[in-house]
Amino acid sequence: MSRVYNFSAGPSMLPLEVLETAQKELIEFGTSGMSVMEMSHRSPVYDAIIKETEANFRKLMNIPDNYKVLFLQGGASTQFAAVPLNLMKTGKADYVVSGQFSGKAFKEAKKYGDAKCIATSEDKTFSYIPEITPDMVREDADYVHVCYNNTIFGTKFPEVPNVGDKVLVADMSSCITSEPVDVTKFGVIYAGAQKNMAPAGLTVVIIREDLMGNAREDIPTMLDYKTMADNDSMYNTPPCYAIYIAGLVYKWALENGGLEKMKERNEKKANILYDFLDNSTLFKATADKKCRSMMNVCFVTGDADLDKKFCKEAAEAGFVNLKGHRSVGGMRASIYNAMPYEGVEALVEFMKEFEKNNK
Amino acid sequence: MSRVYNFSAGPSMLPLEVLETAQKELIEFGTSGMSVMEMSHRSPVYDAIIKETEANFRKLMNIPDNYKVLFLQGGASTQFAAVPLNLMKTGKADYVVSGQFSGKAFKEAKKYGDAKCIATSEDKTFSYIPEITPDMVREDADYVHVCYNNTIFGTKFPEVPNVGDKVLVADMSSCITSEPVDVTKFGVIYAGAQKNMAPAGLTVVIIREDLMGNAREDIPTMLDYKTMADNDSMYNTPPCYAIYIAGLVYKWALENGGLEKMKERNEKKANILYDFLDNSTLFKATADKKCRSMMNVCFVTGDADLDKKFCKEAAEAGFVNLKGHRSVGGMRASIYNAMPYEGVEALVEFMKEFEKNNK
Repeated sequence: MSRVYNFSAGPSMLPLEVLETAQKELIEFGTSGMSVMEMSHRSPVYDAIIKETEANFRKLMNIPDNYKVLFLQGGASTQFAAVPLNLMKTGKADYVVSGQFSGKAFKEAKKYGDAKCIATSEDKTFSYIPEITPDMVREDADYVHVCYNNTIFGTKFPEVPNVGDKVLVADMSSCITSEPVDVTKFGVIYAGAQKNMAPAGLTVVIIREDLMGNAREDIPTMLDYKTMADNDSMYNTPPCYAIYIAGLVYKWALENGGLEKMKERNEKKANILYDFLDNSTLFKATADKKCRSMMNVCFVTGDADLDKKFCKEAAEAGFVNLKGHRSVGGMRASIYNAMPYEGVEALVEFMKEFEKNNK
Repeated sequence: MSRVYNFSAGPSMLPLEVLETAQKELIEFGTSGMSVMEMSHRSPVYDAIIKETEANFRKLMNIPDNYKVLFLQGGASTQFAAVPLNLMKTGKADYVVSGQFSGKAFKEAKKYGDAKCIATSEDKTFSYIPEITPDMVREDADYVHVCYNNTIFGTKFPEVPNVGDKVLVADMSSCITSEPVDVTKFGVIYAGAQKNMAPAGLTVVIIREDLMGNAREDIPTMLDYKTMADNDSMYNTPPCYAIYIAGLVYKWALENGGLEKMKERNEKKANILYDFLDNSTLFKATADKKCRSMMNVCFVTGDADLDKKFCKEAAEAGFVNLKGHRSVGGMRASIYNAMPYEGVEALVEFMKEFEKNNK
């Protein structure tokens, strides 16, 4: 079997060049005489790896000097608790619930204070992004939390929501590094790395320095941003190998034109798929046009059995993991940075054939 | 450069056979057409990997059916908070402080209740393990916490401490799978995987089922053992690749005779080193003889400059990461399961030469 086109929502495809480098270096990295997996995180050779990884990530995302980058564990789900534990000072925070994960983040925040849902798209199965205006935000809220791209429902904020002078916190797990973002508009950006950046097991946090140091006293030490920042993400042993792979991915993205180019590629990939869906008599895109995700393209036939047949035949043809999330059904093609244009093109051809054969 | 003998305390050496398999499978695992790093954690192919990993770990450790195995993130340092958050019901817990990490665990527990240090070896720089008797434990303590092997100081509990009918919780990060343990004597065993089991980024928890379900209401969901157990460690995306490597390591350990054989090999390795140290006129082992670790062998010359010279020359000769922890200085040879006998034998030969040349 050769490599398939893997449309998994995460963990997901990594650039083949990255995997090839990882394979070559697996047993002996450079002249170190050992695998990156075996390196002491405090050794000079590993220190160079993590420093280069951070430098390339900063360059790629254009992260200003007054923001810290943290390489953590626990996934975005751990950040759902870390955010309120670190940032709630008045005890109030406002949440936009635009999907399953932002719902979980909201629920978790309620454990630690007065979290309020200021907007939701639950009325239409999260198929759109609710509009946010500064007057919706409470005066004394410490921050506003959004999930920037909703992996399960295939929606994305069409622009940075306007929350006035409030601190904006964004879960960017499924869109980080897919296009340029103005980091200065956010207080905290966090992302599980397993979609666009690395294998699962790494969580990246970008945080404005002045927001650290106000954590609750009973916060688990490992969740305290300041502790992690003061120790350069090495308060304990970080997920070294996942960080190394992330470093290879960042280098790959820079070598391939950076985030402007990623955006261009991603738009081109998403457009060919959405254009087909908009003209199909069998398939239909489910997300509101104004806030379609470039990363996760959700669609249905309207017939659950036919959806199932499609996923089965697609997998046999080498297009795998097209099944929608178990909570919503249908199909979802996740087309992160590492998915080549050819993969999406071939999928569209396959869908055309399927449509012809299943009228 | 060929592979060195890596005496790092963690992350540390992995069996070469494991790395070779990982290298071979890196780009395409079996007939899946993708890397394990790219697999959806909910796909059948990955499900088979994690299930086999757990089955082999259970077999290796002889884990009874009434214990759950959890594959988590965050390191032992996250467990320092998770343990009290999950297990403190009366709000009281007793701690044995036999080194730096048990000290950190104790300090973290004090955030969540009345944690008491019932014994410590701090008076002699943690060079021994204090004796524990059931009468030292408070009647209403929910559990007694110990660090079973102290990586930094090279000591290990010579036997399972007698805490009467109290729940015993053990951090086994640096000795897990190095020898058989009677799991039934423990309520919870946890371990960062990066010493004896896998690359950094995986934490394994073995917990008796009846101890779950009593977590504090405000516990971060990701730290709640019951949530993780109810979801078979897949409440969110687990550290899939590290789990896969752990699976290869467990298989390797089983194929090499299981934990009885690991113990035999480890004793043989530790003995040749301790025997040399006990007869050396230059080097001296620092840990109390009655509680020497088989995994971390700490020693000094008594002269900081000479220690430095030794580490430098050893590294040049291919024996790397022999420097002691930055908090104690001196030397430490960490000789986990993956370190071959030949590595320790060669180190002893090198030490003999060094001794001759530096009298």
